[in-house]
Amino acid sequence: MAGYKRYRKESEVSYSLGITLTFELLKYKAEHVTRIFIHSGMKEGETLGKLTELSKAAGIEIVHTDKIFHVLSQKENCYVIGEFRKFQGTLTADASHIVLVQPSNAGNMGTIMRSALGFGITQMAIIRPAVDAFDPKTVRASMGAVFSMDFVYFDSFEEYREAFGERELYPFMLDAEMKLYEIRPKRVFSLIFGNEATGLPDEFSCIGTSVVIPHSGRIDSLNLPIAASIAMYEATKPKI
Amino acid sequence: MAGYKRYRKESEVSYSLGITLTFELLKYKAEHVTRIFIHSGMKEGETLGKLTELSKAAGIEIVHTDKIFHVLSQKENCYVIGEFRKFQGTLTADASHIVLVQPSNAGNMGTIMRSALGFGITQMAIIRPAVDAFDPKTVRASMGAVFSMDFVYFDSFEEYREAFGERELYPFMLDAEMKLYEIRPKRVFSLIFGNEATGLPDEFSCIGTSVVIPHSGRIDSLNLPIAASIAMYEATKPKI
Repeated sequence: MAGYKRYRKESEVSYSLGITLTFELLKYKAEHVTRIFIHSGMKEGETLGKLTELSKAAGIEIVHTDKIFHVLSQKENCYVIGEFRKFQGTLTADASHIVLVQPSNAGNMGTIMRSALGFGITQMAIIRPAVDAFDPKTVRASMGAVFSMDFVYFDSFEEYREAFGERELYPFMLDAEMKLYEIRPKRVFSLIFGNEATGLPDEFSCIGTSVVIPHSGRIDSLNLPIAASIAMYEATKPKI
Repeated sequence: MAGYKRYRKESEVSYSLGITLTFELLKYKAEHVTRIFIHSGMKEGETLGKLTELSKAAGIEIVHTDKIFHVLSQKENCYVIGEFRKFQGTLTADASHIVLVQPSNAGNMGTIMRSALGFGITQMAIIRPAVDAFDPKTVRASMGAVFSMDFVYFDSFEEYREAFGERELYPFMLDAEMKLYEIRPKRVFSLIFGNEATGLPDEFSCIGTSVVIPHSGRIDSLNLPIAASIAMYEATKPKI
């Protein structure tokens, strides 16, 4: 039997690193779980009992090994890894979306998923080239939100727009038409964010209503997960 | 001459790792800079010329060495390090504050500083035990905002409150009196956030007006820099 390999984007499976994340995986995507790995350092007890029970109930193989932990995890206190087949999401025309154009940081993508799920936006469009939503770093940063989100990759924004353009489109850029607190979405919407380093290209200013989150000149920009989260907060909160 | 040592909380100096951060340091805290270190991999050119010029103008010694980079930086493309004496900030009664109670993550603290500066909140109170605001990780995550913020450590929240309690106090907690979008600060305020893992202790519900950022039950909580940034956005935006 071959040894364990590092995660690659091309792999058919990915991994939840850590016990909490693996419980989230079992809760929301049990049908996709292929194996659960348990490290020799994992203590007997209620948590392990519950994990074993859930895995057995779902017919998932439990493998006791330390090897895969050396390959996949740098953290010292990671004693459980879940292996799962990648799954396919779908977007729908009647749901609001968050759209990430060429995102380059796995941790940021995961953090945005966590916030999105918190604000009830459960569908994400990702425009290539883009970081891998199944990268264990994304999975970890999402704190399991990735298991509840529907996300779909598109080769270009045009491709996304042809499929889902009939809605309120809000590209976020520094040079924008409206300030965030002025917008009042009336139907389903898409909040569109550019790459961490470069933002959205200028041509997005002609798409829908461009929006800025005003900030002082003392900083260049807000960080991407923070800007996206503020936008989702504002766009989804009750108007009072 | 002794070799270079790792950064410690007790050190009298800290470091800006990277060229962009070091320019921020020179821009806002030149009088505190003790040395600029330049790696042999740093290319000649306009950037280096500008750095050299600024350093000379401020009477700052430039040291050409690779050694300190091995000690302080894990990043491959870090070719400039600024060394600076730690500085002392002050809080004032007429300014709004962000208060971090026992924050445990340097990156989070830096990210919060960056957002705070963006929203015009330039004073931060930090309640011990707490992560080090001068840790190079905080400095880096702040993207230089740390050089423009005034921050002061307190041994307890009571100590802070005795000095600055005469204002609107908003502790953020899940079980709260008001929702974020319901509050309307009328004078200077303090937004108070607990530790990443534990949040604020229950007794904060009796202090000022407790506030929650409502989110779905699908996530346990928003991450701390995101919650703090959303709060600062909402509390400082024009009421329209």
